Amino acid sequence: MEVASHFVKHYYNLFDTDRTQLGGLYTNESKLSFEGQEFQGPEAICTKLVSLPFKTVAHHITTVDCQITIDNKLLIAVLGQLKTDDDPPHSFFQTFSLADRNGSLVIMNDIFRLVIHHVA
Amino acid sequence: MEVASHFVKHYYNLFDTDRTQLGGLYTNESKLSFEGQEFQGPEAICTKLVSLPFKTVAHHITTVDCQITIDNKLLIAVLGQLKTDDDPPHSFFQTFSLADRNGSLVIMNDIFRLVIHHVA
Repeated sequence: MEVASHFVKHYYNLFDTDRTQLGGLYTNESKLSFEGQEFQGPEAICTKLVSLPFKTVAHHITTVDCQITIDNKLLIAVLGQLKTDDDPPHSFFQTFSLADRNGSLVIMNDIFRLVIHHVA
Repeated sequence: MEVASHFVKHYYNLFDTDRTQLGGLYTNESKLSFEGQEFQGPEAICTKLVSLPFKTVAHHITTVDCQITIDNKLLIAVLGQLKTDDDPPHSFFQTFSLADRNGSLVIMNDIFRLVIHHVA
């Protein structure tokens, strides 16, 4: 779905070039789960994303799946790889729920996980 | 969130023991994206899941993240590994949106992907 892949490109382009701008994509009701930590609202979410301890990051998208929900939100699931500083690439997946607010898409729900299977 | 992890265990237990029963978790409006293929409604979804070409399957859950959406749905993102027949384990991730229908949780949206990064 074109709007979904356009959004995803925009999101990761902002993430990789200037994370301080990501707050503009969230509302006061927006929630982020980042590796199991929970944040709500643009300030808390943006502060978390900006504080991540790497200097450079590049996201490479593998797949984008999108469904329109019965209440006209976009549910997007992304699989990709990200590379931070000199580390090897990591697989990640991220789920977004997007809503229309005055003609712009905003992120209502955002769940991020690296693909790491901890051995018991 | 207990209700989310309970649901997830129930879903994969049904999947691993009797996939023919999974249709009961979906409604006519429910959508499944399975490795990029789209299905709607319990019959189409269950037919797809039952037709998957393996005899035995076991899902092992690594992480379950859950958010309550502003319209009181549960958004769940699962990371895990699955093992089919004699194949090596595969990583997968799956996103569910659940709604309450007469006191029972039903799956409104379901997106499944194996964690495979195709090399260009």
